[in-house]
Amino acid sequence: MTVPELRRDPVGGQWVIIAAERARRPMDFRLAPPGSQPAEDCPFCPGNEAATPPEIFALRDEAGWKLRVVPNRFPVLTVEGALHKRGEGIYDAISGVGAHEVIIESPQHVTSLTALSEERISEVLWTYKARLQDLKRDRRLVYGLLFKNVGERAGATLSHTHSQLIATPVVPIRVQNEIDRCARYHDFRGRCLLCDIVTQELASGARVAMESARFVALEPFAARSPFETHLVPKLHLSHYEALEDAWMPELAAVLRATMRKIEKALNRPAYNYLIHTAPLNAAPMEEYHWHLEIIPRIEGVAGFEWGTGFFVNSVPPEDAARYLRDL
Amino acid sequence: MTVPELRRDPVGGQWVIIAAERARRPMDFRLAPPGSQPAEDCPFCPGNEAATPPEIFALRDEAGWKLRVVPNRFPVLTVEGALHKRGEGIYDAISGVGAHEVIIESPQHVTSLTALSEERISEVLWTYKARLQDLKRDRRLVYGLLFKNVGERAGATLSHTHSQLIATPVVPIRVQNEIDRCARYHDFRGRCLLCDIVTQELASGARVAMESARFVALEPFAARSPFETHLVPKLHLSHYEALEDAWMPELAAVLRATMRKIEKALNRPAYNYLIHTAPLNAAPMEEYHWHLEIIPRIEGVAGFEWGTGFFVNSVPPEDAARYLRDL
Repeated sequence: MTVPELRRDPVGGQWVIIAAERARRPMDFRLAPPGSQPAEDCPFCPGNEAATPPEIFALRDEAGWKLRVVPNRFPVLTVEGALHKRGEGIYDAISGVGAHEVIIESPQHVTSLTALSEERISEVLWTYKARLQDLKRDRRLVYGLLFKNVGERAGATLSHTHSQLIATPVVPIRVQNEIDRCARYHDFRGRCLLCDIVTQELASGARVAMESARFVALEPFAARSPFETHLVPKLHLSHYEALEDAWMPELAAVLRATMRKIEKALNRPAYNYLIHTAPLNAAPMEEYHWHLEIIPRIEGVAGFEWGTGFFVNSVPPEDAARYLRDL
Repeated sequence: MTVPELRRDPVGGQWVIIAAERARRPMDFRLAPPGSQPAEDCPFCPGNEAATPPEIFALRDEAGWKLRVVPNRFPVLTVEGALHKRGEGIYDAISGVGAHEVIIESPQHVTSLTALSEERISEVLWTYKARLQDLKRDRRLVYGLLFKNVGERAGATLSHTHSQLIATPVVPIRVQNEIDRCARYHDFRGRCLLCDIVTQELASGARVAMESARFVALEPFAARSPFETHLVPKLHLSHYEALEDAWMPELAAVLRATMRKIEKALNRPAYNYLIHTAPLNAAPMEEYHWHLEIIPRIEGVAGFEWGTGFFVNSVPPEDAARYLRDL
């Protein structure tokens, strides 16, 4: 297996993982996402543990494992090897060192997080924190992205409920861009932009889908797609992994209730969720504020969106928020 | 019909068109792109001219029209109304003033640009220029994005070969980001980044798919997807609409030959192409250089890509370039 390479586009600034070992020949593409496999062949179900690489972490009770973390069988980055940065004329490249883990959220073959109890979801959210804290000790790793793909349209290839964690030796451009914008806002106004958004949204209420003592689920002012929803902690915190254990049950309750509303509103859509948090190697930041973005994938991404980062959304977020509140 | 609104996300910086009139109710989504309509119902075929809004521009010969430009029947922006910028607390919004045009490239019901002769493609490329020059006179419009969606996976809803032009009152974030990065490079090194890329790529040859006297088709160093291909003019030029008419036949020949190779390599994939050019209202820029990006849509965009702008590509661009050269 050749080590993958990270390359940065000098014009757009985005990084790309050139992962040649995922396809044997140039023609060997996945022309459409594979369909869901039947449950009896599921590599995430109990009894099939040998189908995954050896366990990194697990939670167990007397009945067996409740949650497992394993390396991705087809990792986009590999944990072995030195971090080597090189130039190629005007181009920048880095060896593809990183981690690619799968969090198997339940031994039951359920396809939605919402089929789990709040207590189990709380353990999943706690595991996210524990994995970030562990990976943080590897000084080669700069960023940890936690995400979930549900449904073929959202890029899922296995239906058994799971999340993924990719740790990279660079900060992804969208996150860096958010951090830069938040830093400019903080320079100019002396406050955290996300804190100000929470304050303004709670005062108006028009785009709030639900709230608890410490968290709010809101439809962003410039939602990129119908029913895009962000979960934001009300108190300032730059790093997800700094969240107190005592808050996990509340976050789990808000996440579960929000996802249930979205599943009901859109009849169990394909979706992605992901956590935007500060870089692993950064000290606590006054200007950045972690949040979880939920993006239902009910419309495709056409050339205009791809080419410009300019999205068209046919559902005003105020309408979506009202609809979710009323459910 | 309510006027659409442009909203900017304060954290990410991207603009979103909230186009509520495209969906009647929050639940009224397009859950999957509609299939291709049969040719006899095609609103772009001769005889069905009444199915489109009145013509903005056309090229004709003795046999009738060869090419038509019409307003999009379901525009994401509208040309009527004053440009009104407003704040909503910390948020920025602009009334959705702009243009959304469709370039019907042929009276024949063909589904690929490559079915047209080089001469006809040259007329299409000339029309792009003419439309940008015309829209430039409207001082409310700041950017003109020309793009093409082919195939359902790429967001196409009609199969009859056509392109689209969306003119907006703001510069899209991805283009602004490219301009900013190119300006930083120009500050630091005193040369245009794209000019340097062309020089380095022609010297190496490894990522060149084809070239002519004035243009090069190359696989970018950090290609985001297999067989992503950029057409770049060898001579510096910031604005597409400043391209000389005499160069159009050559650009048409390179575009047609490149697209034919990609169609052959990937068995007629869905794809988007789009032109990145300098803002309509900018003077000629030393630091920016227009180019045309072709993005085959053979893999979906999953949560990781969406959330980070970090792409995974399973085909090294050097392999793709070699394959295209050998075709």
